[in-house]
Amino acid sequence: LALQAVQSLGNAHHHIYLYYCGSCTCLVRGTCSFPVAYMGDLPCRVCLSLVFTGRLVHYAKVIPPWKFWKDAKNICIMVIILLTLIDMIIYGSLKMTGYYGVRWSRVLRPLFLVNITEGRLIRRSFRSIRNTLTQVLYVFLLFLFSILMFSLMGLKLFGKRNFETSDGKPYFTNYLDILFDMYVLVTTANSPDVMMPAYDFSVWFSVFFILFIVVNTYIFMSVFLAVVYNNYKKHLKDEVKKLVRVKRYKMVKAFEILKVLMGNEYVIMQSDWNQLVRMVDPSISSSHRELLWSVSDDSQNGYIGKFAFIQLSDLLNIKVITLKSRVHPLKMCLPRLYSSAASRVIRHAVQHKAFVFFYDFIILVNAIFIGLDEENSLLSSVEWVFLGFYLLEIVLKLYTYEPRSFFARHQFWNWFDTTVIIAALLATIINMTLISTEVYNSREVLDIVFILRVLRLIRIVDSIKRFRAIINTLINIGPTMINFGQLILVVYYIFAVIGMEVFKNKIKFYNSNSSEPLSEFCGNDILKDSAFVKSKYCKNNFNNIVSSFILLLELTVVNQWHVLATGFTMVTHVAARTFFVVFHIIVVIIIINIFIAFVLEAFFVEYTVEKCDLQTSIEKKIQEL
Amino acid sequence: LALQAVQSLGNAHHHIYLYYCGSCTCLVRGTCSFPVAYMGDLPCRVCLSLVFTGRLVHYAKVIPPWKFWKDAKNICIMVIILLTLIDMIIYGSLKMTGYYGVRWSRVLRPLFLVNITEGRLIRRSFRSIRNTLTQVLYVFLLFLFSILMFSLMGLKLFGKRNFETSDGKPYFTNYLDILFDMYVLVTTANSPDVMMPAYDFSVWFSVFFILFIVVNTYIFMSVFLAVVYNNYKKHLKDEVKKLVRVKRYKMVKAFEILKVLMGNEYVIMQSDWNQLVRMVDPSISSSHRELLWSVSDDSQNGYIGKFAFIQLSDLLNIKVITLKSRVHPLKMCLPRLYSSAASRVIRHAVQHKAFVFFYDFIILVNAIFIGLDEENSLLSSVEWVFLGFYLLEIVLKLYTYEPRSFFARHQFWNWFDTTVIIAALLATIINMTLISTEVYNSREVLDIVFILRVLRLIRIVDSIKRFRAIINTLINIGPTMINFGQLILVVYYIFAVIGMEVFKNKIKFYNSNSSEPLSEFCGNDILKDSAFVKSKYCKNNFNNIVSSFILLLELTVVNQWHVLATGFTMVTHVAARTFFVVFHIIVVIIIINIFIAFVLEAFFVEYTVEKCDLQTSIEKKIQEL
Repeated sequence: LALQAVQSLGNAHHHIYLYYCGSCTCLVRGTCSFPVAYMGDLPCRVCLSLVFTGRLVHYAKVIPPWKFWKDAKNICIMVIILLTLIDMIIYGSLKMTGYYGVRWSRVLRPLFLVNITEGRLIRRSFRSIRNTLTQVLYVFLLFLFSILMFSLMGLKLFGKRNFETSDGKPYFTNYLDILFDMYVLVTTANSPDVMMPAYDFSVWFSVFFILFIVVNTYIFMSVFLAVVYNNYKKHLKDEVKKLVRVKRYKMVKAFEILKVLMGNEYVIMQSDWNQLVRMVDPSISSSHRELLWSVSDDSQNGYIGKFAFIQLSDLLNIKVITLKSRVHPLKMCLPRLYSSAASRVIRHAVQHKAFVFFYDFIILVNAIFIGLDEENSLLSSVEWVFLGFYLLEIVLKLYTYEPRSFFARHQFWNWFDTTVIIAALLATIINMTLISTEVYNSREVLDIVFILRVLRLIRIVDSIKRFRAIINTLINIGPTMINFGQLILVVYYIFAVIGMEVFKNKIKFYNSNSSEPLSEFCGNDILKDSAFVKSKYCKNNFNNIVSSFILLLELTVVNQWHVLATGFTMVTHVAARTFFVVFHIIVVIIIINIFIAFVLEAFFVEYTVEKCDLQTSIEKKIQEL
Repeated sequence: LALQAVQSLGNAHHHIYLYYCGSCTCLVRGTCSFPVAYMGDLPCRVCLSLVFTGRLVHYAKVIPPWKFWKDAKNICIMVIILLTLIDMIIYGSLKMTGYYGVRWSRVLRPLFLVNITEGRLIRRSFRSIRNTLTQVLYVFLLFLFSILMFSLMGLKLFGKRNFETSDGKPYFTNYLDILFDMYVLVTTANSPDVMMPAYDFSVWFSVFFILFIVVNTYIFMSVFLAVVYNNYKKHLKDEVKKLVRVKRYKMVKAFEILKVLMGNEYVIMQSDWNQLVRMVDPSISSSHRELLWSVSDDSQNGYIGKFAFIQLSDLLNIKVITLKSRVHPLKMCLPRLYSSAASRVIRHAVQHKAFVFFYDFIILVNAIFIGLDEENSLLSSVEWVFLGFYLLEIVLKLYTYEPRSFFARHQFWNWFDTTVIIAALLATIINMTLISTEVYNSREVLDIVFILRVLRLIRIVDSIKRFRAIINTLINIGPTMINFGQLILVVYYIFAVIGMEVFKNKIKFYNSNSSEPLSEFCGNDILKDSAFVKSKYCKNNFNNIVSSFILLLELTVVNQWHVLATGFTMVTHVAARTFFVVFHIIVVIIIINIFIAFVLEAFFVEYTVEKCDLQTSIEKKIQEL
């Protein structure tokens, strides 16, 4: 029965990408700006619910009931499906009777992604955030108290002085407005402006603002980072401990099954071990397996004890790159030519340092040419020269090094180079033919050509060792960063859905040649004379999922967020400010700080990396062999 | 001879505050905006140089020559004095012959403060920064490379598209301007604005900016923090190690002098030890000294070995608060009354939790009243009621608790309360008399009254235990933060001096009722229509040391710094941008990151504080006694 369950799970795993794709389309389609009528969206939503219900039923069948009902994920998905159904019915009936309904269940959609079995990493991130919240709460309350106090003081100091802001509005007269202004000042978004009227009157008033900035922007924000970081570290440690414990438990279980009595102790025989490793990871080559065995069985007895066996899981995690000293295919086909004096000179030259310097120099010259005006016909022919140089480089390298090891999986820069240069060659040819045939002069193709040309220059980074180290760290933390990106997307999606529900079509963007009378005021004449319109922010709106995401990104970057927030409050209600403040608290104060904590931790690990015992013992073995 | 030297140093130490005061006045006066003629500044500068020369001569006399010449500080001060003299002569002669001269030696002045013996902490901070620089350099170069690449791509993508910024200027056409704009985007100061023209044209162009922000603002800035933080930690560890080593070395030396042969080992007798501790810190009470001895001499032999003796330096660092159970003075004078039933009820009530809750409630009600309009006569009489309540609280507490322990040194909140309330009482009385006599209705006194009233509300924080813990941490890191403040002041001073030399009187501030024709354009009609004038930033100028410091603080906060920078480049030259970019790199990327690292580290220490062995052994002893 257990075997059957495992097999079914395996099957489910194969189908999961289908589920994913289906739900993703729904997520996007359901929130698209294209004039999809409600009924057009309905099948998609029904289908989404059906997919997840089907999945759930499938799970309920193959998993023992007590285990199925104990799993919070399954319960969660059931509740979400139920809520979605209720919402569909309410919204549908409201719509049919002509009332306005809010499709609130859309907010729950990303929770599907979080709660399926495969969303383990996102779930872990959410758990990490939840753990941080209680710790952050107390600092946050203190921080809030500080803002309340400063606002009160501001009201008392400036409220009666009849100051005016730079656009002639009364300054520091309404407590709630002051509170918002002071919160914005914490984010530094209105930094000198909010101070100027008071500062113009007296230098002493600047002390009030300086104190506020030092206490709230510098000290409190650092404390937030400290609390989040501390929690992140603790959480990471706990997770790692838990994982290690589970791993050890499983390895001990495996040992109990495979053990053989030898003398007065239980051991694992080499043949059993070999079979196991082959089953666990069939991609491991036999030489690699032999290496692992000789590390485990240090005294070459032909069997290993419990301790050495448990180490296996760690051994398998150590990346061993097998460099096969393959013979160059040209040497196989044309041995005479490839070994000739001229050929050897070429190969020596390519392997020489001067070759790298020469190409670094060419890249620098190329950078200057790219900076110049490309409409000059001379320059566009120079481009061919550079392309020729780069192609020659690749050909020469392929001539010198064995192609399969040149394009090995870990050779990131070789892949990068070749892809960029071949793409640039293709794009340039396409562009040339388009221009020469004069059928269609595409700016887009030219854009791609330019991007590829500039990307080519990045290669120079690889020549400097110190840069390579930094970039390798960044590449190493890439996968976790993608996990982080998913987390951000889920949070953005929730806010985007709420934002679209509340602010949709309140602010519209018109092209500059539009005939719409209100096109200058983002289609809403309440915004006349507002900073929102003056800064031409009309395209920053919640009218579709893409522009919502870009707007939320702008809010994450923080600068000018108060202008955006004020624009949306003007067209709705003052209470809409809470949406933006809550977004700032959740995304900037918590999630971005987790991101910073994560980058910090990753770099510290890189800095203090000390090879573990196992790794050194493997290296020793390799040197011995 | 050595003793003499130490004594002289001791004397010098007493005189140092005089030196400090003298030099500080010079620092401020020499850069004042008040119309002090050059000749008026001269005596001060001469005096400053003389003071330091005198100090140097004094040192040279009392310190052995080889030690004097080995000390880099002394050499440094000599060079600075020499340079200052040269500058004075050049500037004086240029001035007399009618030429314009730059007083470049003013930049060197803060180095006096850094290089005197007492500037140890600042020197350490500078050393820490210097150590960080090499590490930061590589990341910085990579970061610069990234900006260069993105700018080049931006030029190619948008340069030919004839976009316009929101104020109708050409968009992304000049490479150097793009570079500046992109650097500003890293600091997020022009966040959505710089993107809008391209974004309005096509959603795809936003990808360029999003990628730029993710790479440079988020990843690179975090990496900077990581590098600075890592270095800070390493440096801190090294410093602590060095200090411990020096301490141990000195303690061993002291042991060698005081040791007495007892049996077959050298020991220190209690009487010698007592004498030593009394000489080292006369403020330690005899009971405290006995406690320390009983911790050191655990088996009560009357003597201690080398190891226990070396621990002494750590023992002295542990803060032991001596709580004397003093008898209340009223009990001494009026024993009958103080012990009566009514008196006991009062004292019980004050010690009860409800008493704290009652006053917390009063504070909350008071907060609401403060928020209301104070011109209502009813409200101003309510203020007297609140003052009465607070005074009553202090009186009751003084009645219940012994006054000397109530005002003990570590009772921060008692001191705070009493000071604020008595000051508020005085200020309110002064204000009332001023109003009633109608001689002078001072807004300033009223300001102070308001500030004190609001400060009173802070007390509520103390009632919540969790808040108290956070605030205690903040108070604990206070002294180091002051050291940090000094560092910032030195850096600010250097930039302020350069700024005043370059930008002085290029931008002027006029009151709103000024008759000056150019008052609207900050006294400079080049600024007409600039964002600088539109935002009314005229008072942000380098005309005197105070406004320079405030301006530099605004630049540190980052927001709108490009508007300020552009204003100053318009009235001088495009090259002036470098001043602002360099300031940003040094202050925001390096120093503020050190500050954040420091707060992080302080909080981690607070979180993971585990009492050291010595501290626990002291506590055990105290419990035993």
